[in-house]
Amino acid sequence: MKLYREMSREELLALKAELDRQFEDAKGKGLKLDMSRGKPTPAQLDMGMGLMDALTSESDMKSENGLDTRNYGGMDGIPEAKHLMADVMGGVPAENVIVYGNASLSIMYDTVSRAMTHGVLGNTPWCRLDKVKFLCPAPGYDRHFAITQHFGIEMITIPMTPTGPDMDMVEKYVSEDETVKGIWCVPKYSNPQGYSYSDETVRRFAALKPAAKDFRIYWDNAYAVHHLYDDRQDEILEILSECEKAGNPDMVYEFASTSKISFSGAGIAAFASSKANIEEAKRSMTIQTIGHDKINQLRHARYFKDLEGLKAHMRRHAAILRPKFAAVLAVLDRELGGLGIGEWTRPNGGYFISFDAMEGCAKAIVAKCKEAGVVLTGAGATFPYGSDPKDSNIRIAPTYPTAEEMAEASDLFVLCVKLVSVEKLLAK
Amino acid sequence: MKLYREMSREELLALKAELDRQFEDAKGKGLKLDMSRGKPTPAQLDMGMGLMDALTSESDMKSENGLDTRNYGGMDGIPEAKHLMADVMGGVPAENVIVYGNASLSIMYDTVSRAMTHGVLGNTPWCRLDKVKFLCPAPGYDRHFAITQHFGIEMITIPMTPTGPDMDMVEKYVSEDETVKGIWCVPKYSNPQGYSYSDETVRRFAALKPAAKDFRIYWDNAYAVHHLYDDRQDEILEILSECEKAGNPDMVYEFASTSKISFSGAGIAAFASSKANIEEAKRSMTIQTIGHDKINQLRHARYFKDLEGLKAHMRRHAAILRPKFAAVLAVLDRELGGLGIGEWTRPNGGYFISFDAMEGCAKAIVAKCKEAGVVLTGAGATFPYGSDPKDSNIRIAPTYPTAEEMAEASDLFVLCVKLVSVEKLLAK
Repeated sequence: MKLYREMSREELLALKAELDRQFEDAKGKGLKLDMSRGKPTPAQLDMGMGLMDALTSESDMKSENGLDTRNYGGMDGIPEAKHLMADVMGGVPAENVIVYGNASLSIMYDTVSRAMTHGVLGNTPWCRLDKVKFLCPAPGYDRHFAITQHFGIEMITIPMTPTGPDMDMVEKYVSEDETVKGIWCVPKYSNPQGYSYSDETVRRFAALKPAAKDFRIYWDNAYAVHHLYDDRQDEILEILSECEKAGNPDMVYEFASTSKISFSGAGIAAFASSKANIEEAKRSMTIQTIGHDKINQLRHARYFKDLEGLKAHMRRHAAILRPKFAAVLAVLDRELGGLGIGEWTRPNGGYFISFDAMEGCAKAIVAKCKEAGVVLTGAGATFPYGSDPKDSNIRIAPTYPTAEEMAEASDLFVLCVKLVSVEKLLAK
Repeated sequence: MKLYREMSREELLALKAELDRQFEDAKGKGLKLDMSRGKPTPAQLDMGMGLMDALTSESDMKSENGLDTRNYGGMDGIPEAKHLMADVMGGVPAENVIVYGNASLSIMYDTVSRAMTHGVLGNTPWCRLDKVKFLCPAPGYDRHFAITQHFGIEMITIPMTPTGPDMDMVEKYVSEDETVKGIWCVPKYSNPQGYSYSDETVRRFAALKPAAKDFRIYWDNAYAVHHLYDDRQDEILEILSECEKAGNPDMVYEFASTSKISFSGAGIAAFASSKANIEEAKRSMTIQTIGHDKINQLRHARYFKDLEGLKAHMRRHAAILRPKFAAVLAVLDRELGGLGIGEWTRPNGGYFISFDAMEGCAKAIVAKCKEAGVVLTGAGATFPYGSDPKDSNIRIAPTYPTAEEMAEASDLFVLCVKLVSVEKLLAK
C-alpha cells in the first residue's frame, strides 16, 4: 500500500490507465443505484405495519385524558404521545412537549417563520432587522440550511469535530454578535458524520451567554434512538435540563420525529422547550391550526406503548441497517486504507457515513459515480449555500439499497475516488 | 302575537316580571349545554369508524402511481386523494390540487404567512409594505379574521347578503385600492348564516379587476358537500374555471378539508389553484416539509372510494343533523315569530344558524344564556376584531348536542332574547 501522493508521475499514469480500464468495465455493468437519500428501506417499513392494526373500528378512540381523538380539541397533542416523544428526547418533562403531525422539518420552518414575522418572546420580528445570522455546523443537514437561506438569513459555517461543533468559535460568535439568532444542531449521530456531542460540548452549549436575547439553539434530535449496535451506543446529555441548570431555560428549541422510527410518510413529530417557549408556540397555534392528527398520535402511542417498546422496534431496524453500513465500510477500508486519498466516519448510529476526499475532488467523484449509474448526494449539499469550500465532503446514505447493492455501489465509489485523486495529483 | 316595540311601558313591565320569573326557573334547572362550536357529534364520528379498517397490516400501501405511502416522496399528495378532494371542490382538475394533513386552516395560515415573508408570484413581500388590507364579509368565520389580525393586516367589513358579499362594495375596494390583497370567502353554506353565493356573485368575483397584482380570493369551500336535505341543496359555480374564463386564472386560492366529513381530529385538507400558484406553493413546500401524512390520504381514498361514496356518507351525517336544526328552528319560529325582536336564517346545509337580535342586545343575550348554563359563541366573534358594530349577531351551532338538548337550549335562548329585548325597550 503506497500513499498516492508519494507516487511518481509514471506510477500515477500507469495507475490511471488501469483505473480508466476498470471504470469502463464498471460503466458497462449498467448499474442503477441510489445512495443519495437518508430513506428507510421497505423492510424497515414492513416492520411497522403492526401500526396499521393498532386502531380498528372497534377501538376506544379516547386518549388517556378522556379526549375524543376523532374530534376537535387538544391542539398541543394527546398526553400519551407527549410522554412517548418526551422519552424519545431523552426524558424531557411531557408538559414541555407539543406533538405535531408528520415531519419535524415543518416545526423548524414554522419556528423560524414565526420569529421572522412575530419575533421571539417579545423581541423585534426578524423581518424588521437589517441582518440576521445563523451558525451552521458543517458538514450538516442541507434542509436546515435551506430554511435559513429561504428566509434570507446569513449563514456562518462552523467546523464540526468528533465531539461536536467548534465550541470556541460558537461561544465567540454567540457572545459577541447580537445578529446571531440561532444555531442548527444535530446533536446525536449527526447528519452526515454520525458524530455525537460530548458532555462538555452540551454543557458549553447550555452555558452560552448570548448577546441576542432571542438567540436559540435549534436542537434537531433526529436520531435520538437510532443506534446501529447493541454494545456501542452514543448517549448525549439532555439539553433542556442542562440549559435550565445553567440559568438559560429558554435558550433551546428541541425537535424530534418518528420519521425514521415508524413511517417517513406518516409519522408524528414533536417540539420540546421551556414553559415560556411552549406557551408562545401554543399562542401561535391557536391562530394557525385547529390541531394535528390526534388519531395518528394515538395509533403510535398504542402500538409502541412506551420507550422500551420503541427501542425494541429500533433494534429490529438496526439488524437490517448494520450489514449495509458494514458493506460500505468494508469496501472503504479494503480499497482506500493507507492510500491517503480519503477519510471516512464509522458512526454508531444514524443514517449516514461521511467521506472526505482530497481537496477539490468531491464534485468530480460524484459526477464520475453518476456517469456509471450510482447517484450520491450532491457534493456541497452538506454545507451552507450548497458550497463546500474545500470541495471535499460526500455524504453516503447506505440505508435504502440492499447490502449487496451497497457493496456494488461502494466498489464503484472507491474506484471513482481513486481515479479522480490520481487525476488531481497528475494535474498538479 | 304583538310586536314588542308596539307594547306600552306597562305591558313591557308586566312581561318583564313574567320573563324574570321564567328565567329564575330556568336557572334552577342547572343546564349545562354548549352550542358554541361547530363540532361534529360523536354519532357522526362513529359513522366514520370504517376508516380505521380501510388499511390493515395486510394492505398494499402503494398509491395509484406506485409510490410507497409509508416512505418519503410525493410531497404534494397521492393521486387518488387529489382526485377525491378535486371532486369535493366541485370538479377542479386534480393536477391543480395539493393534499395536506389535518386542518385546512393551516394551509390558509401558511398562504398568508408566505405572502408576508416572500410575496405572491414575485410581488413585494407584504411585510415590507406599509399597509395591507383584507376584505372580510361579515358575519363570517372568526378564525379567518384571527389569521389576518395576527399578521397585522387591516380588515374591512363587507356586509353579507343572502346571495353573498355586497359585490358593489367588493368591486370598488378591489379595483381602487392597491393595498387590498385579499378577501375571505365561505362561498357555500357560509359560516354562520348558511348562505350560498349566487351564480352572479361568483361570476362577479371571477371578473374582478384588482388594482393589486397580488390580490387573491381566499375561497374556503369548507361546506362543499354538507347538505342537510335531499331535496333542497345549494350548489355554487366552480370558481377556478370561472376565474380562468374571465382571464384571471391566478386570482383564487381554494381550500377544503374532510374535517366535517371524516374526522375533525384526523382528516385531510386540500388546496386548489392555478398552475402558477400551485407551483409557487410547491416551491415553498420543498423548504418547509418532507411531506404530509400520505397513509391517511390513502386511508381516506380507499374508504370513500369516490365522490359518490363520500356523498352517501354525508347523507348519513345529514340524517343526524336535520333534527337538531329542526329543533332550534321550531323553537325560534314558535317563540319569536311575529315579535320583531330577532331574525334568523334557515340554511340548507353547513353547521350554523345565524341569529340577529335587536341592535345592542347580542352581548347581553349571550351573557344571560351563560348565567343559566348555556354557552353560545361569544357575541362579536363573527366580525373582524371580534367586534360587531350593531352588537346584534349570534352564531348558533346545533351540531354537537342532541336534538333534545338543542330544544332545551333553544328554549332558554329565546327566553333570554325576550328578556334582553324587553330590557332594551324599557331603557329607551
